[in-house]
Amino acid sequence: MKAIQLQTKFELLRSNKAFELFVIAVILFSALLVGAKTYDMPSTVNRITNILDWLISAFFLVEIAIRFLGEKNKLHFFKSFWNCFDTLIVLVSLMPLENSDTALIARLVRVFRVLRMISIIPELRLLLISLVKALPQLGYVMLLMFIIFYIYAAIGSTLFEEINPVLWGDITISLLTLFRVMTFEDWTDVMYETMEVYPLSWLFYLSFIFFTAFAFLNMVIGIVVNVMEEENAKAYREAHQDEPTIEDIAAHLHRLEHKIDNISNKR
Amino acid sequence: MKAIQLQTKFELLRSNKAFELFVIAVILFSALLVGAKTYDMPSTVNRITNILDWLISAFFLVEIAIRFLGEKNKLHFFKSFWNCFDTLIVLVSLMPLENSDTALIARLVRVFRVLRMISIIPELRLLLISLVKALPQLGYVMLLMFIIFYIYAAIGSTLFEEINPVLWGDITISLLTLFRVMTFEDWTDVMYETMEVYPLSWLFYLSFIFFTAFAFLNMVIGIVVNVMEEENAKAYREAHQDEPTIEDIAAHLHRLEHKIDNISNKR
Amino acid sequence: MKAIQLQTKFELLRSNKAFELFVIAVILFSALLVGAKTYDMPSTVNRITNILDWLISAFFLVEIAIRFLGEKNKLHFFKSFWNCFDTLIVLVSLMPLENSDTALIARLVRVFRVLRMISIIPELRLLLISLVKALPQLGYVMLLMFIIFYIYAAIGSTLFEEINPVLWGDITISLLTLFRVMTFEDWTDVMYETMEVYPLSWLFYLSFIFFTAFAFLNMVIGIVVNVMEEENAKAYREAHQDEPTIEDIAAHLHRLEHKIDNISNKR
Amino acid sequence: MKAIQLQTKFELLRSNKAFELFVIAVILFSALLVGAKTYDMPSTVNRITNILDWLISAFFLVEIAIRFLGEKNKLHFFKSFWNCFDTLIVLVSLMPLENSDTALIARLVRVFRVLRMISIIPELRLLLISLVKALPQLGYVMLLMFIIFYIYAAIGSTLFEEINPVLWGDITISLLTLFRVMTFEDWTDVMYETMEVYPLSWLFYLSFIFFTAFAFLNMVIGIVVNVMEEENAKAYREAHQDEPTIEDIAAHLHRLEHKIDNISNKR
Repeated sequence: MKAIQLQTKFELLRSNKAFELFVIAVILFSALLVGAKTYDMPSTVNRITNILDWLISAFFLVEIAIRFLGEKNKLHFFKSFWNCFDTLIVLVSLMPLENSDTALIARLVRVFRVLRMISIIPELRLLLISLVKALPQLGYVMLLMFIIFYIYAAIGSTLFEEINPVLWGDITISLLTLFRVMTFEDWTDVMYETMEVYPLSWLFYLSFIFFTAFAFLNMVIGIVVNVMEEENAKAYREAHQDEPTIEDIAAHLHRLEHKIDNISNKR
Repeated sequence: MKAIQLQTKFELLRSNKAFELFVIAVILFSALLVGAKTYDMPSTVNRITNILDWLISAFFLVEIAIRFLGEKNKLHFFKSFWNCFDTLIVLVSLMPLENSDTALIARLVRVFRVLRMISIIPELRLLLISLVKALPQLGYVMLLMFIIFYIYAAIGSTLFEEINPVLWGDITISLLTLFRVMTFEDWTDVMYETMEVYPLSWLFYLSFIFFTAFAFLNMVIGIVVNVMEEENAKAYREAHQDEPTIEDIAAHLHRLEHKIDNISNKR
Repeated sequence: MKAIQLQTKFELLRSNKAFELFVIAVILFSALLVGAKTYDMPSTVNRITNILDWLISAFFLVEIAIRFLGEKNKLHFFKSFWNCFDTLIVLVSLMPLENSDTALIARLVRVFRVLRMISIIPELRLLLISLVKALPQLGYVMLLMFIIFYIYAAIGSTLFEEINPVLWGDITISLLTLFRVMTFEDWTDVMYETMEVYPLSWLFYLSFIFFTAFAFLNMVIGIVVNVMEEENAKAYREAHQDEPTIEDIAAHLHRLEHKIDNISNKR
Repeated sequence: MKAIQLQTKFELLRSNKAFELFVIAVILFSALLVGAKTYDMPSTVNRITNILDWLISAFFLVEIAIRFLGEKNKLHFFKSFWNCFDTLIVLVSLMPLENSDTALIARLVRVFRVLRMISIIPELRLLLISLVKALPQLGYVMLLMFIIFYIYAAIGSTLFEEINPVLWGDITISLLTLFRVMTFEDWTDVMYETMEVYPLSWLFYLSFIFFTAFAFLNMVIGIVVNVMEEENAKAYREAHQDEPTIEDIAAHLHRLEHKIDNISNKR
């Protein structure tokens, strides 16, 4: 009996607007703490931030616990991706990593607590889901792009390895160099260097830029068209929901025809 | 009686096309003066430009006064954002800042008089309003982007601070460095530097570029889709304004059916 | 009598497909000649290209003459922008500029003969016209962008002139520097330099980049939406040309109603 | 009799899903081999990769043979672009190029075996076909762009050759330099250099950037509009396939009218 009362209490607390805002405030504060730690500070302040860090971790643990206990069906809780996500972040930041060797890792782990901002704000959650949903549509364009990259990287590291092993040493370095060329970052320096040995190597770079730019353009247009179509379909459905369709009109005409035929036949 | 006559006069003057064009001309001239002052000029010319500056300020004051006095309801005047904007700019440029210490600030304040161009040309005003209106739609994408930036800046200033404090010293400098990476401005120099210590740090940069590029793309597509939808809805309303809708057709058919039923029943 | 016969002959020649292709070939050849002259060549070859140049000029003169004489109404000829354009290019390249001082100008004038490619190919002409037509729509966005540029250039040359007069010396140089910043060309070098004196000057650059990027984005979206709408309207008109409209249906229903009323009344 | 049995067997093998996946696996493995060869490896490993290379070539030959023998009409086989493409790649990689002089070419030829990935995956094939189909629509914009490039390159190599022959030596080098300017790659370095001799040469660069950016924008918008229209037309056809059209409604009304007229006339 008491357990159920407690659960109802937790459920109420969980859906309480003030509680939610307080959680957002704590997440924001933990984000600011993460930022503050990147500045050089006297050791007293450092000790305070460490204590605050533990307090935040404790609060997050309590908050997750409340949300877990407030769930009627305990198994249901871990079916939600965002609950698992929150639990994982909280558990990881609870690990005792304070000794000097792992202090860096401990600090990095704290950074990811900022990600809880996404799980707590529904609009950000929706946005992220729609971003992730858009990815598979691009699957084949990205595969095509990777094939282009791979072929050019293989050619580049075969031909230009001797010229500059830092840029064309093996296929992974070449892939990085080609990504650099795609972002137009000092790509002429890379080109002029190889053009001294192979005067026609501008063909390599220009064709690469054209292919990737063209594939990229297609990727972007692909997303735009997809998004547009969905929006148009949604808008169309909304606009014509209560309106009679042309099919209704046709059915109505058939009914009329039948009645007129009846009149005609009666005679 | 006389006050009302005067007010009507000012109202006429205010809406006079020639007066408006003269105001635009004075604003243009003040903009040219601002530009001219950036050139080194003999002190005589400098003194002339200072006098012209005061004349322009005086003219702007008179013009605002005319527009204020031409308003029937004086309280109404400050309800318009653009009137407040104009008054503020004029008042600020009237402040006596001519002594050597504040001469720089005085010159900067004058620059903002060019902004009056926006308040005087209705099309620019409309354009700015539509730009500002488009901003809130982007709110959540920009928040998401800021979270991505913040997390990467926190990681960057934790890991790379020792390598180059000028670029990764604290979280604000890191945010600036990441913005630089997003604009592809010598981003490989930043990367190659950290790759010497952490050979896998290209993952940091490439994932950052992918995330921000993807979020940015979504932002752009979001705006395009929004603008398109509004335009389509407007175009649809305009095109189908006088045309009978399918609903009208359906209603008409019902009427016909009723009449046919009547004929059928009469018999 | 003979003059009219001659004119008809010219008219036939002018619209002859083979003649047109020959003109295109000569223009192409003159373009190649322009390109060939940029290479260092022995003086014999140089002399040959000069002779070819004169032959091309002569041919163009003859061609223009044929087109002029082939026109029935001589005044009509100069009403076409492209005829004036062609005549101007031919006349300018006929000017005797072969002496050493003006040889450079003579060579430059020849370059513009390549532009005749646009006037001779109807598709390119159409394309250019549609490009030019798209410009005025952008008028106000471009004015707004110029105001942003001007204000930032005035602020920049006021604050940063002492730091680097090469980049911020006066307002025109500042405008050029800001254009450079907008293209992200080594913009951080410009920023880091001023940040040493004014540590907050990153605000100047970042706000500028945001404003111009936003205005530019709006410009692009403006064009896209405009083009789309025109295309949609055209497509709509084409699709529904022969199809009965809903208005026709409504009129038809009225006619039916009238007939049914007649039947009903007769009784 | 036996030949036909064999052919049917090959046909079955060819369309076997497991066989297809195995071919994809071999292509993937050959791609990895190409990548692995860019790393420095001990000679034993090198010898193994060479043997694997020959095995892959042999497998590809067998696979092509199976597909050829599995085809009922042998002439039909080479009518497919992708069959010719595969055969060419396999034949070229079979050429004995293992001696030291041509080892480099042999390695490059192997790289193109990765392209077989496109011919084996139908989605990539479709994507590539749609990319290639989009090209001719851009024909005239690309021609216009090339004319802009050519004219600017001719002017550039005429005026700036003396200043920096490395960048403006002849028309091909100038075209490359202009492409660099279009990608904003250190374009100000190029500009500042020529501005020392011709202070107004910024006009050259800025007008070039505006023209090409404008033409490029038009190209992109052209593709977007084309793709959109096709998608819209497809979506429209799909949506209204089974639905009665307004034309059907109009025909139906005519039929009704005829019947009503009959009733009216009978009387």
